[in-house]
Amino acid sequence: MGLTRWKLTIEYDGRPFAGWQYQENILSVQEVIETALFKFCQQKIRIHVAGRTDAGVHARGQVAHFDLEYGDRVLTGDVLVKALNAHLRPHPVSILNAQKVPDDFHARFSAVNKYYLYRILTRPAPPTMEYGFVWHIRWPLDLTAMQEGANHLIGQHDFSSFRDSECQAKTPIRTLDRFTITAQGDMVECHLEARSFLHHQVRNMVGTLVKVGSGRMDPSTIKTILEAKDRTRAGMTAPSDGLFLMRIDYPA
Amino acid sequence: MGLTRWKLTIEYDGRPFAGWQYQENILSVQEVIETALFKFCQQKIRIHVAGRTDAGVHARGQVAHFDLEYGDRVLTGDVLVKALNAHLRPHPVSILNAQKVPDDFHARFSAVNKYYLYRILTRPAPPTMEYGFVWHIRWPLDLTAMQEGANHLIGQHDFSSFRDSECQAKTPIRTLDRFTITAQGDMVECHLEARSFLHHQVRNMVGTLVKVGSGRMDPSTIKTILEAKDRTRAGMTAPSDGLFLMRIDYPA
Repeated sequence: MGLTRWKLTIEYDGRPFAGWQYQENILSVQEVIETALFKFCQQKIRIHVAGRTDAGVHARGQVAHFDLEYGDRVLTGDVLVKALNAHLRPHPVSILNAQKVPDDFHARFSAVNKYYLYRILTRPAPPTMEYGFVWHIRWPLDLTAMQEGANHLIGQHDFSSFRDSECQAKTPIRTLDRFTITAQGDMVECHLEARSFLHHQVRNMVGTLVKVGSGRMDPSTIKTILEAKDRTRAGMTAPSDGLFLMRIDYPA
Repeated sequence: MGLTRWKLTIEYDGRPFAGWQYQENILSVQEVIETALFKFCQQKIRIHVAGRTDAGVHARGQVAHFDLEYGDRVLTGDVLVKALNAHLRPHPVSILNAQKVPDDFHARFSAVNKYYLYRILTRPAPPTMEYGFVWHIRWPLDLTAMQEGANHLIGQHDFSSFRDSECQAKTPIRTLDRFTITAQGDMVECHLEARSFLHHQVRNMVGTLVKVGSGRMDPSTIKTILEAKDRTRAGMTAPSDGLFLMRIDYPA
């Protein structure tokens, strides 16, 4: 016998949670999943996540792994998904997929790419169905200017200017592979991909580009800010509401 | 001076409401908008809607009209939108647009086309962010079979088999101009357009087609059911959660 390593793909509405990570006296996504696991197998199991999302951030494809000893019985991914989802109610957290992975798989360290989506609703009227799922901006944004600004961020750079002061990463160097801005009607969507991001990097970049899209900053200033390596030069941190961890890729 | 007729375009999350229409002791969309209007102009104004949505049904583009006497002051659509939206908080109802229309405009009787969307989430895992905004079906649906069944409904027919027993329309004859079924990943979307619909017609047609998509009914049976003109022959009424009134068209 022995341990089996499982990979979970997870969707959640971040609104009621203090974020992914377990904290005393306040609800986290980690806690509700670990509680569901305990109800399923009566074992206190620690799960390891790919990307620790902040309070209010949503996920369509978060990934976590854990090790489970399940006796002699055969456990399939479908059975595990169904059981965990039953125990997760009424929390807005769903296990989309569970699969057995090799022992050297690590949700965080094995990841080769992360895809984040940031949504901005640009119209005078407040959101109704999208409340908590968008950053609401009351005016139109100049997407061409925003894309021009975003292009300065693509590639390998020192992202100190867009890094949270509490970021614990060893280096501020990251490689941004994609930063494309699209729109469907008045919904502006920013698509970002990289192997990894600094703390608040997506939200700080989006917050700064909204200044560009609002005509209050020239697109070329993004390059100046990047080169300054100084957080005080960039714009505000965009709210957590509009941020979605969409997908995490692993080697085939 | 005198009365000005205003046309409102309205978005709402139907979840907290007993439906569009005013009812005693329970919250309706009509009541919260009429209350917002009262707060704005201190007049008890009756609003007339294009499509009275049922409890739990959502709208992206509901339309209503009302007549307002606003003294000598100039009132623009933008000012009205902003004021009503301020008074509508915290209800998930937003006025997207307000425009002056001729006195013979009627939200319901002038409409020439209505577009409804019905969304079905087809996957084992329960919805999280879409909770209340989809019909959750745990298995995949055969969209080709559903479209084949839907095609029998397009055109002018007696829709008695898909009409609620409490429907008060004078005739069960309607002309369905569009019934297309598309999918984005595991989200199945049914797009329906007609000048008008019978009560529960969309939900009864979708509920029956889900039987077809689940392999429990042959697509050709839709034609048999339609011709029977008998409500007991069709399938269940699909839940209100997945239904969205998307758009209402008027003559240019």
